[in-house]
Amino acid sequence: MRWLIAPDSFKGSLDAAAVAEAMRQGIARADSRASFLLRPMADGGEGTLDALYAAVGGEWRYFSVSNAVGETVLAPCLLLPDGTAVVEVARVVGLPDAGESQVAQRSSHGVGQLLQALLQQGCRRIAVALGGSSTNDGGAGCLVALGLQLLNAQGQPLIGRLQDLHELDSLDAQGLLSRFAGVELEIWSDVDNPLTGAQGATAVFGPQKGVAAADIGQIDRQIAHYSQLLDAQMHRDIRHLPGSGAAGGLGYALLLLGGHMQSGAQAVARHIGLAEAVSQVDWVLTGEGRSDSQTLSGKAPACVAELAHAATVPVSLLSGAILADEQGLLSGGFAGCFSLCNRPMSLEAAMQEAAPRLAHMAEQLARTILAAQGGVKG
Amino acid sequence: MRWLIAPDSFKGSLDAAAVAEAMRQGIARADSRASFLLRPMADGGEGTLDALYAAVGGEWRYFSVSNAVGETVLAPCLLLPDGTAVVEVARVVGLPDAGESQVAQRSSHGVGQLLQALLQQGCRRIAVALGGSSTNDGGAGCLVALGLQLLNAQGQPLIGRLQDLHELDSLDAQGLLSRFAGVELEIWSDVDNPLTGAQGATAVFGPQKGVAAADIGQIDRQIAHYSQLLDAQMHRDIRHLPGSGAAGGLGYALLLLGGHMQSGAQAVARHIGLAEAVSQVDWVLTGEGRSDSQTLSGKAPACVAELAHAATVPVSLLSGAILADEQGLLSGGFAGCFSLCNRPMSLEAAMQEAAPRLAHMAEQLARTILAAQGGVKG
Repeated sequence: MRWLIAPDSFKGSLDAAAVAEAMRQGIARADSRASFLLRPMADGGEGTLDALYAAVGGEWRYFSVSNAVGETVLAPCLLLPDGTAVVEVARVVGLPDAGESQVAQRSSHGVGQLLQALLQQGCRRIAVALGGSSTNDGGAGCLVALGLQLLNAQGQPLIGRLQDLHELDSLDAQGLLSRFAGVELEIWSDVDNPLTGAQGATAVFGPQKGVAAADIGQIDRQIAHYSQLLDAQMHRDIRHLPGSGAAGGLGYALLLLGGHMQSGAQAVARHIGLAEAVSQVDWVLTGEGRSDSQTLSGKAPACVAELAHAATVPVSLLSGAILADEQGLLSGGFAGCFSLCNRPMSLEAAMQEAAPRLAHMAEQLARTILAAQGGVKG
Repeated sequence: MRWLIAPDSFKGSLDAAAVAEAMRQGIARADSRASFLLRPMADGGEGTLDALYAAVGGEWRYFSVSNAVGETVLAPCLLLPDGTAVVEVARVVGLPDAGESQVAQRSSHGVGQLLQALLQQGCRRIAVALGGSSTNDGGAGCLVALGLQLLNAQGQPLIGRLQDLHELDSLDAQGLLSRFAGVELEIWSDVDNPLTGAQGATAVFGPQKGVAAADIGQIDRQIAHYSQLLDAQMHRDIRHLPGSGAAGGLGYALLLLGGHMQSGAQAVARHIGLAEAVSQVDWVLTGEGRSDSQTLSGKAPACVAELAHAATVPVSLLSGAILADEQGLLSGGFAGCFSLCNRPMSLEAAMQEAAPRLAHMAEQLARTILAAQGGVKG
């Protein structure tokens, strides 16, 4: 049997390549003659660059920029063989680096610096993977790094942290104009939320970045004020677009710069040649740390399943947890949804033992499939 | 597809029939055209009578006897259509009824009373399912009920609780002789332990019945003394036979009465026509509360698997937990070993949610099999 193994990473436990390798080992134990295509996946969040590099290679470039709390760090960019420069926001202003800092102090400035550096090097095709950011500044920091001027009532410039926006009095977007002229800018995201309001970045994603419930309203109004001024000056109406609320408003900033939004998982799948790989195998196995009905909304396993369905190749899901599937929505899309848990166990144990448990479960799956193909009496 | 569903009970959670029904529901969700044979299994322990009755029916008879702590209870016996009267020790002197009592105070007397009643009713074929007892009296209580006299140094009779054996001075087995002449006595058990010694009933099974570690040696010597006297008087050497240590020594007592030991699971399988059922289906599903390498030693799923292998029908295992299978011993015997756990979860949650989790997992298994049979490209 020929297998395509294309899981997302298991956050906090194993990266996508390690997940794929554990699955491969288990299947090989059940079927020593099996052959494998390993295509670790990503959905435009954490691990996107690694998944791309594992599949198609490319050239790593590093740039000295600010992280979310203003410390200078070396942030990577992957130059793909097709010339696309890919930026992973999680590796510039990601949550793990934000430490104990307040969300008000964080800025997406480093993302703007990185884009500026790529423009200066002459990149004409840039993709920004938006998942995993720690910032909620409406993309203001990013835009300031690219030439936007934010001014307080005294005419003094603001540097674009979230906490600066309440002082915002006027702005000058002159420096932004035509900055990305002739550049193809892709925005990879699986988020449809608008910038502000009840479904906006602050209300929906703020709390997981440390925004206190009591502060949501005030912060949302500050970002609304900033984006109204900016949209007006650019003669655009970006802040209501789906996805403008991605990555704490980086979606808004990149849309304003002329970016085109697309599913992160689909973009990764396209770059790693997943559709072609699917057409070469008999069975597809995907997975992620935890699967629920959200999985179907643009997560990596849903993208993998869609390609498999199109090619009428069976696809199974093997995740850390399979949650809340009372309506059978997940089950309906897969030839079996399995958890790596082989017994009642804690989340900690499941994460620590993820690799052997994944291998064990993949082995059971392969044994079942082999028996079904060969051992059933008519 | 035609399925045979033959699980053991999940102790403390679901009886075997409920397990089978949950599995059936899950498979039917995946395949509305599937047909089913349900054969809830048992291994000669708790649930044996229920499994037999569910499969072949029979006639329930109730007898007023003593439970392990001497209270009068109504104990059931199942008269199978083939004339065999089946006694389940767990329903006469079972652990749950023993409450907070000391193991020294418990006696297997009620089992002897029940056998005596069956003999008086003219039963000529009797099977005793040994699992799940709370007693460790060497079967002395059972034999006293059937005519054995145990005497202390003053010539006073003892009633055969474990605590009486330290007073034992002599015995008279005259009353036991030919009690079971012309009677076919089957002993159903999956235990090979001898009555005494390091692998004996007290050392191995005593602790789970409440024998303190410090008391094991003394109790073992008392049981050895009792069985030496009895073996000598009967001109037998029963106490060293495999299985004499089953059910706290009830194995010894029944062997002494001329019983023949056999695997409980195999005996149940024979009575419920499992081999014939296996030959009529395309796939077999079995399971138990927790599976480990012990499962292969005569437990119900191992017996089911053996029959399936003989008929070259694939058999999958779906248990509460799949434990300690580093050498792949379990995996090697099944077309997939699965746990009902769909996520990291506590033992309590796994037991409470067992029915919906079993259904969900059986559905995933069936989906996988269907896809493997129909959806794979050459």
